[in-house]
Amino acid sequence: MEHTRGLITVISGPSGTGKGTLIAGLMDIDKDIHYAISATTREMRSGEAEGISYYFKSREEFDDLISRGEVLEWDEFCGNRYGTLRSELKSRIEAKQDVILDLTVKGAMAIKKAFPDDSVSVFVLPPSIAELERRIRGRKRETEKQLSARIAEAEKEILSVGRFDYVIVSDSITEAPVRLKWIIDAERQKMIRNEDILQRMGF
Amino acid sequence: MEHTRGLITVISGPSGTGKGTLIAGLMDIDKDIHYAISATTREMRSGEAEGISYYFKSREEFDDLISRGEVLEWDEFCGNRYGTLRSELKSRIEAKQDVILDLTVKGAMAIKKAFPDDSVSVFVLPPSIAELERRIRGRKRETEKQLSARIAEAEKEILSVGRFDYVIVSDSITEAPVRLKWIIDAERQKMIRNEDILQRMGF
Repeated sequence: MEHTRGLITVISGPSGTGKGTLIAGLMDIDKDIHYAISATTREMRSGEAEGISYYFKSREEFDDLISRGEVLEWDEFCGNRYGTLRSELKSRIEAKQDVILDLTVKGAMAIKKAFPDDSVSVFVLPPSIAELERRIRGRKRETEKQLSARIAEAEKEILSVGRFDYVIVSDSITEAPVRLKWIIDAERQKMIRNEDILQRMGF
Repeated sequence: MEHTRGLITVISGPSGTGKGTLIAGLMDIDKDIHYAISATTREMRSGEAEGISYYFKSREEFDDLISRGEVLEWDEFCGNRYGTLRSELKSRIEAKQDVILDLTVKGAMAIKKAFPDDSVSVFVLPPSIAELERRIRGRKRETEKQLSARIAEAEKEILSVGRFDYVIVSDSITEAPVRLKWIIDAERQKMIRNEDILQRMGF
């Protein structure tokens, strides 16, 4: 159903739960979902484009946006900052576009706080701790110490599940995206996202 | 996904929106949905069974249940009372069963009030006023006066849509039940209905 305002879906969960595969699977079966574009201080690489790959910002611009409360959440990797701009999400929902983001628990909560009515948060759980360990250990390039730290971090993150609106168990590569789609399709039918439905339908 | 507590889905909407067809279509594609059993003061007919067709009550029993707040909503048709028992819904959700009810707006709001966390309300809209009129006028046995009253009542009821959690437009006999199933499947994945998920999964 066409809806009045776009919906922000924030996905979170420990590494090893297949969030990337889940989101790719969803985008495969739902062409109306867009990946939210992040802002970054990293330099543009060949083949990338402003506003498509990222919103490219200088460090000064990024810090200025942070100080004005325009960066809802951000992190630093390899010396570069990556974050979510309030303006990106605001313009998407006003254009009736549905966006999805893959964020840390802290990042997810920041989005919920900024857009309480326009966002839903989904936590992705692995089928079991053993399976999570198996998936994390599958990352051959990391040392045992790094792997152990990742597993401990994942176990800690899982305790945050209660702060989310929905929970999905990533037990099947084909079914988990369908379950995510149910959530988004249901949310599109929420009254809160269809407040003009009577006018829209000519009643 | 198996969930911790059952879910109560209350369907409402004016006559002529095909709520019956919608619910039958849903029960066809979702075998885990049960129709909530009503209580009635009407006499048991042949082929009916206590607790399957209805909970059959004497007028005195029914009135006593009302006075004890055990009847969440009720109506009278042809001299018989029909209502929803708190005990019916309570035992279903505790048994992890999902139930569906088709009620008036007033009835739906009474269920929401009694089970704010365990119920969702869905309003069914006809595709247009013209189509609603056409469907209501299809009831050949009613007089013009009865039909006009029904149409006026339906138009009035539609204004209550904003009080519901979700809205479905009954524009397709095959798609509307699927959209209702999305809502129910999404609701089953709500954190609030899976509070024991970490214990349940052995984390």
